Amino acid sequence: MTEAKNPLAEVRERIDSIDRQIQELISERARWAQEVARVKGEGLSAIDYYRPEREAHVLRMVVDRNKGPLSDAEMVRLFREIMSSCLAQEEPLKVGYLGPEGTFSEQAVRKHFGHAAYGLPLGSIEEVFQEVAAGHADFGVVPVENSGQGMIQVTLDMFLTSDARICGEVELRVHQCLHSQSGRLEDIKRVYAHAQSLQQCKTWLRVNLPDAERIAVGSNAEAARLARHADDAGAIAGETAGKVYGLKTVAKAIEDRADNTTRFLVIGRSLFPPSGNDRTSLLITVNDKPGALYDVLSPFARHGVSMNRIESRPAHTGKWQYAFFIDVSGHIDDEPLQAALRDMGPVATQVRVLGSYPVALP
Amino acid sequence: MTEAKNPLAEVRERIDSIDRQIQELISERARWAQEVARVKGEGLSAIDYYRPEREAHVLRMVVDRNKGPLSDAEMVRLFREIMSSCLAQEEPLKVGYLGPEGTFSEQAVRKHFGHAAYGLPLGSIEEVFQEVAAGHADFGVVPVENSGQGMIQVTLDMFLTSDARICGEVELRVHQCLHSQSGRLEDIKRVYAHAQSLQQCKTWLRVNLPDAERIAVGSNAEAARLARHADDAGAIAGETAGKVYGLKTVAKAIEDRADNTTRFLVIGRSLFPPSGNDRTSLLITVNDKPGALYDVLSPFARHGVSMNRIESRPAHTGKWQYAFFIDVSGHIDDEPLQAALRDMGPVATQVRVLGSYPVALP
Repeated sequence: MTEAKNPLAEVRERIDSIDRQIQELISERARWAQEVARVKGEGLSAIDYYRPEREAHVLRMVVDRNKGPLSDAEMVRLFREIMSSCLAQEEPLKVGYLGPEGTFSEQAVRKHFGHAAYGLPLGSIEEVFQEVAAGHADFGVVPVENSGQGMIQVTLDMFLTSDARICGEVELRVHQCLHSQSGRLEDIKRVYAHAQSLQQCKTWLRVNLPDAERIAVGSNAEAARLARHADDAGAIAGETAGKVYGLKTVAKAIEDRADNTTRFLVIGRSLFPPSGNDRTSLLITVNDKPGALYDVLSPFARHGVSMNRIESRPAHTGKWQYAFFIDVSGHIDDEPLQAALRDMGPVATQVRVLGSYPVALP
Repeated sequence: MTEAKNPLAEVRERIDSIDRQIQELISERARWAQEVARVKGEGLSAIDYYRPEREAHVLRMVVDRNKGPLSDAEMVRLFREIMSSCLAQEEPLKVGYLGPEGTFSEQAVRKHFGHAAYGLPLGSIEEVFQEVAAGHADFGVVPVENSGQGMIQVTLDMFLTSDARICGEVELRVHQCLHSQSGRLEDIKRVYAHAQSLQQCKTWLRVNLPDAERIAVGSNAEAARLARHADDAGAIAGETAGKVYGLKTVAKAIEDRADNTTRFLVIGRSLFPPSGNDRTSLLITVNDKPGALYDVLSPFARHGVSMNRIESRPAHTGKWQYAFFIDVSGHIDDEPLQAALRDMGPVATQVRVLGSYPVALP
């Protein structure tokens, strides 16, 4: 007895066959990951064979190959999780971050290490550095820059006194919107948001809602929830949150700087080899005399090394010294960067390589 | 010029080739998922073609096929994420839960729906039911049972007055351990833990640490963190948390009931077809007269339908009526269950099918 198949059943058979193949391949991949552990020595924890440069390389190939329909970010996310599972077969990575659970910092941990790693919510950025230094955590994830508010000083200052190495960076992008029940600006007498979001949008609020009360709440999700039940309240939250809570969007991208990215650093105890597309963070200390900054920077220009960021801090080492945090393109093993650092020798009192690490993926 | 490859490079080449195949297959799977949407009608949101019974069937095949080295739970997790990404190509599912972010309830959402779904943290279990009923959320996830403390009454009571349907169940298993710096029971003068964990372990604490002060803190991770920095404090937390925070385990499985599972229900607005291994939740109202309960239950026995749970609640509908929440094995479409319900007709004042849904996966 034959029966005409419905098109849905046929599609599902195709998907079943694809799933069977995917599963065989993931299992095979997991076996080869065990082989990596065996080649490097039996009975090791994940930290012994985790290679950030290798992961970045793999994920970059994933992006290069991706032709959709899934977005690059979604495909990268799936491969992160597959790698995370393969790596966690022995002893998973332990990753410290600024807790509690559910924060932006935990999102950054999961984006970078996947969900098979152990997350350690800690009480402060200082504690993240301490736990990594003491070996209680294999890696730490700390916020270092918010494009609305600039560098996060407490993180930079930790590098002045700790031996932490930077092994990676993670970027989370969030556009802040103003949402409300009616979607009309003139109805809004109160604005709910997380304190940081209120801060990030203060110019827009001053100009457009000078008389509205600003109320800091635990999270932007909480803000959106409160705004749903009030006809005179607005909430600052991401585009998704507004949609999810069924609010109308009053205004988009209201943050003071339009490109609202939070950047996190992955800190560890070692330097890693090049991944092919790297960034290097340097801590350079100079005596405070005229022309010192120029003398420090000119070797980069001379050797064609492009600078991405620079931030100066009073050094802890001496009263008249300044420390510069400088991010440049390339790996510390690259010849132009080596040459620039050689030229800098006589000028700088200290040059410390904080880390060379893969540029953040989508 | 040929060069002897090092074994690591060879393994990595194999892994690269596997990754290429996995990626092609995931992309193909995503295209077929679009095809499902097309077959069912263009421009639909995920809710229109999300089929819990189909997902459960797919995941059960994953478990059946799994020969390691990844655990069943880990392989299921990866397939959940792949399905989550494929499903979220149009409009992702919106899933309400008892917030804030980072709680056990969010873990249940992610375990069931993966990370491509939108999570809506809400303020109360009641609100989860309301948002689902109003269509603001496609599904909700609510705790219904903790094996240490029994059924969660507020959730059961919501079914008395709402039209919510049960579309799935999720189980999270946690063994509570007592950890400390020294690992010696006699050093412990204070015990930190989340209030719920203190509650779950109260018998053990009364017997083994009658004089220790019990201090409720925000989470068990917080408890473990506090215990690390004190030589006279213990923390109740999962085995993993103790390991992660570098504590020694004083005692394992100290919860009053050894099988400490929290069970969540997935609620929605529709009933779904059988997945092949289902459970059915019934709400049966009877007049309070002698033998009523027996009369209600005997049809199940007669037709060979096995009961998993029963819980009685005063019904909201009438003063002398009782409502029974009964979970039985099988789907409501199964003939034995149909027969049992037919037999029950004259006895029960009301029989409501709360839902037939796939039994929880690992």
